[in-house]
Amino acid sequence: MKRRHFIKAAAATGLVTSASLTSGPAQAGSTKKIKWKMVTTWPKNFPGLGTGANNLAKLITEMSGGRIKVKVYGAKELVPPFEVFDAVSRGTAQMGHGAAYYWKGKTQAAQFFAAVPFGLTAQEMNGWLYHGGGMELWKETYDAFGLIPAAAGNTGVQMAGWFNKEIKSMSDLKGLKMRIPGLGGEVLKRAGGTPVSLPGGEIFTSLKTGAIDATEWVGPYNDLAFGLHKAAKFYYYPGWHEPGTTLEALINKEAFEKLPDDLQSIVLNACKVVNQDMTTEYTTRNQRALDTLVNKHKVKVLKLPDEVLSKLQSLSDEVINEVAATDEMTKKVFKSFKTYRDQVKKWSDISELAYLKSR
Amino acid sequence: MKRRHFIKAAAATGLVTSASLTSGPAQAGSTKKIKWKMVTTWPKNFPGLGTGANNLAKLITEMSGGRIKVKVYGAKELVPPFEVFDAVSRGTAQMGHGAAYYWKGKTQAAQFFAAVPFGLTAQEMNGWLYHGGGMELWKETYDAFGLIPAAAGNTGVQMAGWFNKEIKSMSDLKGLKMRIPGLGGEVLKRAGGTPVSLPGGEIFTSLKTGAIDATEWVGPYNDLAFGLHKAAKFYYYPGWHEPGTTLEALINKEAFEKLPDDLQSIVLNACKVVNQDMTTEYTTRNQRALDTLVNKHKVKVLKLPDEVLSKLQSLSDEVINEVAATDEMTKKVFKSFKTYRDQVKKWSDISELAYLKSR
Repeated sequence: MKRRHFIKAAAATGLVTSASLTSGPAQAGSTKKIKWKMVTTWPKNFPGLGTGANNLAKLITEMSGGRIKVKVYGAKELVPPFEVFDAVSRGTAQMGHGAAYYWKGKTQAAQFFAAVPFGLTAQEMNGWLYHGGGMELWKETYDAFGLIPAAAGNTGVQMAGWFNKEIKSMSDLKGLKMRIPGLGGEVLKRAGGTPVSLPGGEIFTSLKTGAIDATEWVGPYNDLAFGLHKAAKFYYYPGWHEPGTTLEALINKEAFEKLPDDLQSIVLNACKVVNQDMTTEYTTRNQRALDTLVNKHKVKVLKLPDEVLSKLQSLSDEVINEVAATDEMTKKVFKSFKTYRDQVKKWSDISELAYLKSR
Repeated sequence: MKRRHFIKAAAATGLVTSASLTSGPAQAGSTKKIKWKMVTTWPKNFPGLGTGANNLAKLITEMSGGRIKVKVYGAKELVPPFEVFDAVSRGTAQMGHGAAYYWKGKTQAAQFFAAVPFGLTAQEMNGWLYHGGGMELWKETYDAFGLIPAAAGNTGVQMAGWFNKEIKSMSDLKGLKMRIPGLGGEVLKRAGGTPVSLPGGEIFTSLKTGAIDATEWVGPYNDLAFGLHKAAKFYYYPGWHEPGTTLEALINKEAFEKLPDDLQSIVLNACKVVNQDMTTEYTTRNQRALDTLVNKHKVKVLKLPDEVLSKLQSLSDEVINEVAATDEMTKKVFKSFKTYRDQVKKWSDISELAYLKSR
């Protein structure tokens, strides 16, 4: 690890441990095998998210003809889920897989690279990242931690979540203890609720025991896998708080820079492949799971009232504007994000929205 | 080229020429360079489509550390645009880039892999291809021609097109001579119009000289580049006929099978990267171009009347059902496509559509 990165990362994370990078320089055509570790915030092999991380590792090995082997660790196997960022920053692992809003404690700017309430859909988010300047800002944000970020998965529009009572008006959100991370959680707080941040593996038990009253997680495919329908009755849409959540790959910058050009390209493009693949997997499997939830488990699928959605959007704007003022980097990221969102909305209204309404 | 493929392809295309594959076997780690040609249906460097083909070639070279070099030929440089399929089938080029509905003369089934009126959006189309069985059927369809297909670009929802008069009711489509390929063209014919198939490079002049009364092309980004606003006044949405058009890479099967495993993976994954990248580029650039068209060129952007959209959807169903009955392969592809569309619509209605309406 370059000293300047190490010092920055150590200062930022408060951790001073020795870097343990296993990779050496490997030129194209070299037979030297590189072994990387990937730590993740997901339970091992968790459908969609954990398997997305597995696919990423597999693709890198496959395209590199085995020149890099990436071993994937589920949450807690090597480090706890919410220590993935630090672990990759200090080089305990060369890669990580998670979601940027988990790291708002490091920098508020991170949240814009995962999900923003009433923000961008998957397609729009990728547009911002790849062609609207988002990726450059994400790199700049993480550079202070010796990390290179990459979009490596997107869930598409999520569900609004599971509730143990009907949500008929804003007053039903008052006092509600709900697992909802990131900016969505701040909006809930503003509505009088209590947001809780829990890793995926702890959600079911918390909801079942009544430690929380409600939870959002992802969508039918993942929610069915966790059995959330056994812990709450009412399943609401649309996922106003996470309209197209980007999952991220974290790459230790020092380890990345040791790779020859072709392997660097393979690692970053494997992330792009997984980014698209995950969305299309969710799109396909969500509907099948929805059928099972509705027809087999008799789940009530309900739309949040327009009045509630409209009020949540006002609160979201308030929250995001305040968060954006936290520091210079966050301000810069917000400005880029907001400009893109306002522009792309005009196009999405006459393309995706107009088409889906007509079909 | 394996004899059985060559014979099949030659029989299918009516062409009997000698195969001219330049690639030899190249093992991982080998220093032997492979030179491939990519012929395209697009004008050289045409924004989005032609540059997408360029990106595909560049990515393959980059990820392979230069072990494969792919030279891209614009339409007419090596073969005419609508001979790309045959050229790759017989091995004149190892790769091609185009759209599957151009090959409906080879097999009606091909159209389902490009765009279907009132069919799938980009996200849904990728869902069908990668996780809903679509890709396997596409491979089966092209196997008779010695070709391997890959999705390598998607335009997202297109515009309905440019017209030299307002479209107020179905009677305005009667007698209309419009450039509109594939199944959309069949629907126009059923509505009393005359569909014309023209490669991109010939559209502007045909519209300007009055050889055609209307044209669809792609969306604001591409349409502005062709200057279509100088040839017609009214710009209609949404693109009912092409709600998420997949562009394709064609790969000569014999050439592909000579590649070692890692290069095969690189070629196919480069297609996936370009597939996503093109959609996000269009999403970003379409809005900017729309601003220019509306504010600078004073183009009238209008929504097709609901009554017209509804009637076009009925006609589309008729046309597609008839086309689907053409042969066994087309029937099989249609069945898979229709099942997926009917299922995914239920999910899209409560995710993308419900969210976009609420924003």
